[in-house]
Amino acid sequence: MDLEKFLELMSEGGFFYPSFEIYRGKAEVGGFYDYGPLGVELKRNIIEKWRRVFIYPYQDFIVEIETPIIMPKIVFEASGHLEHFTDAIVECTKCGRKYRADHLIEEELSKKNISIKTEGLSLEELDQLIRRYGIRCPACGGELGSVKPFNLLFQTTIGPYSENTGYLRPETAQGMFVSFPKIFNLMGRRLPLGIAQIGKVGRNEISPRQGLIRLREFSQMEIEFFFDPENAKCPYLDELDIKLRIIPEKDVAAGIKEPKEFRPREAVEGGIVPNEWMAFFMGLATIYMNELGIPLDHQYFLAKLPQERAHYSSASFDQMVYSERFGWIEVSGHAYRTDYDLSRHMKFSGYDLTVERRLATPKEVTEVRVYPNPQRIKEVFGNEMPKVMQAISRVDPKWLVNELNDKGKATINDYSITKDMVFIKEERRKIYVERFIPHDVEPSFGIDRIIYVTLEHAYTEVNGKPLLKLPPDIAPIKVAILPIIRREDYVRIGKLIFREVSRAGLRAVYDDDGTIGSRYAKYDSLGVPFAITIDDKTPIDNTVTIRDRDTKAQIRISIDRITQVITEVISKRSTINEIAKSMGLQLIIRE
Amino acid sequence: MDLEKFLELMSEGGFFYPSFEIYRGKAEVGGFYDYGPLGVELKRNIIEKWRRVFIYPYQDFIVEIETPIIMPKIVFEASGHLEHFTDAIVECTKCGRKYRADHLIEEELSKKNISIKTEGLSLEELDQLIRRYGIRCPACGGELGSVKPFNLLFQTTIGPYSENTGYLRPETAQGMFVSFPKIFNLMGRRLPLGIAQIGKVGRNEISPRQGLIRLREFSQMEIEFFFDPENAKCPYLDELDIKLRIIPEKDVAAGIKEPKEFRPREAVEGGIVPNEWMAFFMGLATIYMNELGIPLDHQYFLAKLPQERAHYSSASFDQMVYSERFGWIEVSGHAYRTDYDLSRHMKFSGYDLTVERRLATPKEVTEVRVYPNPQRIKEVFGNEMPKVMQAISRVDPKWLVNELNDKGKATINDYSITKDMVFIKEERRKIYVERFIPHDVEPSFGIDRIIYVTLEHAYTEVNGKPLLKLPPDIAPIKVAILPIIRREDYVRIGKLIFREVSRAGLRAVYDDDGTIGSRYAKYDSLGVPFAITIDDKTPIDNTVTIRDRDTKAQIRISIDRITQVITEVISKRSTINEIAKSMGLQLIIRE
Repeated sequence: MDLEKFLELMSEGGFFYPSFEIYRGKAEVGGFYDYGPLGVELKRNIIEKWRRVFIYPYQDFIVEIETPIIMPKIVFEASGHLEHFTDAIVECTKCGRKYRADHLIEEELSKKNISIKTEGLSLEELDQLIRRYGIRCPACGGELGSVKPFNLLFQTTIGPYSENTGYLRPETAQGMFVSFPKIFNLMGRRLPLGIAQIGKVGRNEISPRQGLIRLREFSQMEIEFFFDPENAKCPYLDELDIKLRIIPEKDVAAGIKEPKEFRPREAVEGGIVPNEWMAFFMGLATIYMNELGIPLDHQYFLAKLPQERAHYSSASFDQMVYSERFGWIEVSGHAYRTDYDLSRHMKFSGYDLTVERRLATPKEVTEVRVYPNPQRIKEVFGNEMPKVMQAISRVDPKWLVNELNDKGKATINDYSITKDMVFIKEERRKIYVERFIPHDVEPSFGIDRIIYVTLEHAYTEVNGKPLLKLPPDIAPIKVAILPIIRREDYVRIGKLIFREVSRAGLRAVYDDDGTIGSRYAKYDSLGVPFAITIDDKTPIDNTVTIRDRDTKAQIRISIDRITQVITEVISKRSTINEIAKSMGLQLIIRE
Repeated sequence: MDLEKFLELMSEGGFFYPSFEIYRGKAEVGGFYDYGPLGVELKRNIIEKWRRVFIYPYQDFIVEIETPIIMPKIVFEASGHLEHFTDAIVECTKCGRKYRADHLIEEELSKKNISIKTEGLSLEELDQLIRRYGIRCPACGGELGSVKPFNLLFQTTIGPYSENTGYLRPETAQGMFVSFPKIFNLMGRRLPLGIAQIGKVGRNEISPRQGLIRLREFSQMEIEFFFDPENAKCPYLDELDIKLRIIPEKDVAAGIKEPKEFRPREAVEGGIVPNEWMAFFMGLATIYMNELGIPLDHQYFLAKLPQERAHYSSASFDQMVYSERFGWIEVSGHAYRTDYDLSRHMKFSGYDLTVERRLATPKEVTEVRVYPNPQRIKEVFGNEMPKVMQAISRVDPKWLVNELNDKGKATINDYSITKDMVFIKEERRKIYVERFIPHDVEPSFGIDRIIYVTLEHAYTEVNGKPLLKLPPDIAPIKVAILPIIRREDYVRIGKLIFREVSRAGLRAVYDDDGTIGSRYAKYDSLGVPFAITIDDKTPIDNTVTIRDRDTKAQIRISIDRITQVITEVISKRSTINEIAKSMGLQLIIRE
């Protein structure tokens, strides 16, 4: 791949390019990208396909919501992001420049041909590496200060009171956790329940540099999928006709770099993936990326070792996709967040986030009860007896029994209670329901990275000319309308066709500028799957040709069938050649 | 309308409700709303319809882009938001509570039956009102401090250096201005050019209270439409079969409250609306709101007086829609921003944002030229002559001539130049192109308000039961699948149908819980336009009935035609009754 040609096409074709170009050099603008007209369409199509894979077929138990980007501080105290969502930063004591410590160490050491992996290292360990190898500021040669944590949350203030701190969410996920009880009620108080969200997030990277791969503002598609850990069956698991390519945790630990293949159920039964729902979403993720044009051998799942996992995760897989420019990059993360987030929000909000589990067979449980002994209490406390009896009845009986067993006495409201003042009884009773905090698996997709790898995989060159083989259903523009030459009657018909398909909602372009060959080449490079050509037969019999971007084959159809044929080819994921066959039409090859 | 019943339906039905409910009382959470599962679908459908009205038919010159929500400080210095985007705030000197001054004054005075309009008043004028009427803190009775400006931009820091201030955009518009040169190039350097954006914005309101109407985080759909002010013809203006209802500026000034009707061209020719493109977008806005279910007599455009307009606007209309809950509210703003924004960004960025106008007939222009007089310069400056001559040739000749005319001399690089040292000549030449800054009209829509008025207008009650008459093409769920009773074979068929329509991408719900009547009522209240009923004939002949939400009429069709019939009724904005007629089917009325 000619990287420069590719990136020029992305920018000049209006897919994506750095934001705030006119202010470059005058403001801090790194880590922000714009989507141009074609980028916006592609993004929307990629999102819609995600809904078609992850939500629509399962809409009875997976629903989409939208919650704010700005959230109050307490949410991120609860989620742990205020404490844990940091990168290590180091500042030059001479020039004041700041660096992301792990990246700086890897880059400086690689100049000395030393290869070190810094992922998961502590601040102290990073500090030691800097001292051991004498790493200095690459800009001015000055000495580096000590390594410190830098929180990646974008901070702001909500309302006119400066103490009301808010943050931009670094993941859409917290919106789903915080509104779990609301959605759980709306959806009939049933598990499993998937809550999805698609939206913007912010991460204040120290020095973002990799284009669409590491942005300060980007978009995610996430599902928080809540289930009963004692009933984690996924009825759709065996419907997935796909193998998961995984490097399991113990292979990662052993340094094995080659993924192994598992059917989703095998991965669960072999203990590679912790539960069926997680394996299910990993399967859907494989299918999804495949439908975007990523071959199976350009994808695998990489298990994360404990020290590499996010603070909330008890098991994690990164879905890796191959990029010629960046190597293997993560496009989605699959985390088993257990009951971590709901437990924390329950603690910080005081709101009951447990749900009821109806027991298949009622359970016998033993409960400790403590009853006061009025006679003995009267002897010791006299007239205060009623108060003491009330105090005893209000404390947790388990705590009281423990205190009496451990210390021989318990202090309640300044009264010293001893064993002889109470009767301790164990009572057995039947329970039919019990309460628990649902567990959660999270498939989380970075839209911008997916857009990038989709475009990179679609890009190819034929005889030195760029061709963008985007799947037709995600291609931004579906059809180019091209009079073979700029002749008055051709132009008039072309513009009429353009207007008609536009009104039908089909994304189209009209162009009569230049030779037909140069226009075919232009729209091939922009990924337009179909070209309508108006030629000498058109004014006579009201027919045009439809040309297929990838095969260059053409068929001739009547003007009034254009929208229908194109819509059908796209929605059935068919081709012009197949349409020709099914309609008994002759294929024309002109080039 | 039973407001309480309506709002309960909005929340319990999963349309919209306040965010962060579990943290209420523990954090500042005012001004944020969630969209539930039905709200998300409705929002997406309302946005898609906007694209179908404003973009798709004009896609050869109106394109959509996506730019960041976070923008560097210099953008808002240029746009004027740092200086002008403020509300007046006043703080109680005793308890420290803060209020939006204009709202506080209006509320406190209305308690005394004094009605005062505070829009457009200066800080001093607000201050005077507080002193004159002795307004005190409504919470503690304390004295109020002086009225101050409060900037509504959410502030943050970009990257690790604290001086790199950034803000959340308060309008999507600045993204279009900043990337104008990029998109102008992409689109072939032609005017007119519309750049659209749909996305989130933030406004840090002092005390938001009106639900979806005044949010701190909300969504906009905007077009910045750039055109040559000397060629502002809109070829589509007379295609609009609609009248604009407007209260023109001079009627507003005269206190007239009744809108007048104008055909779009009349409004321009009568000097009511400043240009054709603005009238065109006001026409589309009328059609758009009408298609969402807002009758024409519940809409009008209100001209803004100079003191009420935003700092960038030379003419403005608010599109007002009637709400039973809030009275008349603005759902879109139509501003003639002229060349204000591009001029400012040109000044702050130093980037040339002018474009070329090819002149129909070449223009003769007179240019002043100044040539040094070597002989006289030599006499005065001796050996420094060459330096003086160079200095003269480098200054702007217009400036030099002005200086010489005004002061009799000009100082250049410390040399004092007098009239006798130069020859001033006026030269005429022909020019074929000239450069200018495009003008801009902006139709700007608040999505959340549009969602609110759409839902309020759709809401009605029949025999005390809520019915949500959302137009089928924007209804969140298109079809409810309902076995007439919960019998094993009905359930099996119902679930199969549900799965099939789901896979086809149709938003659907399956429900077998309760009587058929109560389920019809439930999905009527959620705005589901069609219900499929599985009854005793279904297992025999594979047919079901489709019931129309509004007319309650049913037709019987075969199972394999469900998706097709529903899709057709929706896309053609047709009804079950019309379908019955066209298919020769009998209407069934069961209720």
